[in-house]
Amino acid sequence: MYTQDQLHEKISNALDALPIHGEPIGLYEPISYTLNQSGKRIRPLFVLVANQIFGGDPVEALPAATAIEIFHNFTLLHDDIIDQAPLRRGYETVYRKWNTNVAILSGDTMFAIAYGELSKSKPELLPSLMQLFSKTAIEVCEGQQYDIDYELQQHVGLKEYINMIRLKTAVLLAASLKIGAMTAGASEENSEKIYKFGIAMGIAFQLQDDLLDSYGNQAIFGKKTGGDIAINKKTVLFIKAIEKSSDTIRLKLERLYKVNNLPVDEKVSKVMSIFDTLGVKESTEELIQSYFNEACHILDSINIPNEMRAMLTDIASNMIKRVR
Amino acid sequence: MYTQDQLHEKISNALDALPIHGEPIGLYEPISYTLNQSGKRIRPLFVLVANQIFGGDPVEALPAATAIEIFHNFTLLHDDIIDQAPLRRGYETVYRKWNTNVAILSGDTMFAIAYGELSKSKPELLPSLMQLFSKTAIEVCEGQQYDIDYELQQHVGLKEYINMIRLKTAVLLAASLKIGAMTAGASEENSEKIYKFGIAMGIAFQLQDDLLDSYGNQAIFGKKTGGDIAINKKTVLFIKAIEKSSDTIRLKLERLYKVNNLPVDEKVSKVMSIFDTLGVKESTEELIQSYFNEACHILDSINIPNEMRAMLTDIASNMIKRVR
Repeated sequence: MYTQDQLHEKISNALDALPIHGEPIGLYEPISYTLNQSGKRIRPLFVLVANQIFGGDPVEALPAATAIEIFHNFTLLHDDIIDQAPLRRGYETVYRKWNTNVAILSGDTMFAIAYGELSKSKPELLPSLMQLFSKTAIEVCEGQQYDIDYELQQHVGLKEYINMIRLKTAVLLAASLKIGAMTAGASEENSEKIYKFGIAMGIAFQLQDDLLDSYGNQAIFGKKTGGDIAINKKTVLFIKAIEKSSDTIRLKLERLYKVNNLPVDEKVSKVMSIFDTLGVKESTEELIQSYFNEACHILDSINIPNEMRAMLTDIASNMIKRVR
Repeated sequence: MYTQDQLHEKISNALDALPIHGEPIGLYEPISYTLNQSGKRIRPLFVLVANQIFGGDPVEALPAATAIEIFHNFTLLHDDIIDQAPLRRGYETVYRKWNTNVAILSGDTMFAIAYGELSKSKPELLPSLMQLFSKTAIEVCEGQQYDIDYELQQHVGLKEYINMIRLKTAVLLAASLKIGAMTAGASEENSEKIYKFGIAMGIAFQLQDDLLDSYGNQAIFGKKTGGDIAINKKTVLFIKAIEKSSDTIRLKLERLYKVNNLPVDEKVSKVMSIFDTLGVKESTEELIQSYFNEACHILDSINIPNEMRAMLTDIASNMIKRVR
């Protein structure tokens, strides 16, 4: 059994060996730049861990793990253009460091490289791997589109919001686990279970991210809290607040999410005070806990050795608790 | 044996049956909009014709043909952002009709859909089909990057230019043919030959496109001639002119390609007059003919029934002669 560190090393080595240092330099430099920022690499780790859990040889899952990580990074390149994000993992985003055209084209190339890596998987698995990979890629795009749509939409319900983060965040984590299971020859039933575990974990993870943006410990979280409020992002906190508020408070909150002439700190503190009054933090924590419990419940139903389950629970808990 | 019209109909039906009419509408509307503009659909036709030439059943090549067409259209969505093109096939480009973010995200989705279609090919062929498809996609991006680079580069040689159009245009046509051959179970040797035929044809096709932009019959060509000159695009005509000119003429030409305060018509006519003096039209025609001859020579070396060869020669000739 490989430890997490050993699996991480395998991923790093596979990424280092990619043919992404050639010409034209203008195309490949942003790709190396992106893939060299190590990040958490949680998705390829999920692939290898799930493979190991079901008795596979993680080395055989490496092409798929690499493909998932390259694909994920490709989506970041394009998302950063769309969201006009200046920084990613503490580095300037590609579209800022170079320009939009570079980020588009280098991103496209990464998508093609990802599929090229996936094609090195066991031939007999390719049809099902490709179908899941493509379905997932399409869903991630759908999630990003809903996210864009919701920015302009007056009312976003909790169900819609959960569906959006399921698509934008959870399906790729879930697919990583399922792909790992598939490469180990796991049963259809178990592959489906680990996928559902991933969906629940992914949703919990994103909700936690929303929570931390307002209630995180700034020193550990690594960025100023209140960022989502400052840009009027309708996260789960806002949606919960609207759900729980009286007409008067709702109008006040909606106005605060439109007004742009208030100093940012004042706006954030006014919104936070409404959140506090309504107990938004607590009810979001409850929601996160319910998805986390669902995930654990699914995991318990899979018949795997205890030390394997422990490894997955460990990674999952770290994902959720990472900055509290 | 299917006629070209029958094969075209199969392609249309396959594209019409794609699951691209769902939600979110903001994502799928631009995709339907793009794929509904029929275009020439030369690439999927190449897939099916090559399949038929080597004794296959074109129906089995349809998923790959569809994948190629979707991929090609995806590249157009992103290229139009990069080139700031207002029109495509007489319609407003996606990034103009909607916006850049829409064109990025809908394009990405098309790329994923393309691979999803490809995955429906015969399982035993998938590894080699995916590898060729991914290699080609990467090369198309490399070609686009060289094209961007050459706009800023002072001197571009003919060899560099040919390599750029090989990557940007020819490899996808060549891969279409090779994929068609592979789906019919053609030998490695014949698959490679039809690929090389496609490369030569693709280069001839792009050179012809350059020629027509300046020397085409405006009524048939469907757009005003001189467009490339107006935007200082270093096409094969410019490169040939630089090659053939004295120092004085070269400086004059280079200055004309920098100056932006001249009325467009005057600039175009001055450049054209230099082209005429240098015999650029004739030497470009010779170059096109040499690639066309190379293509025919390769095609002749493939042992296939005469009526099959005739069909491919017919499509190829139409591509080259289409607007003279």
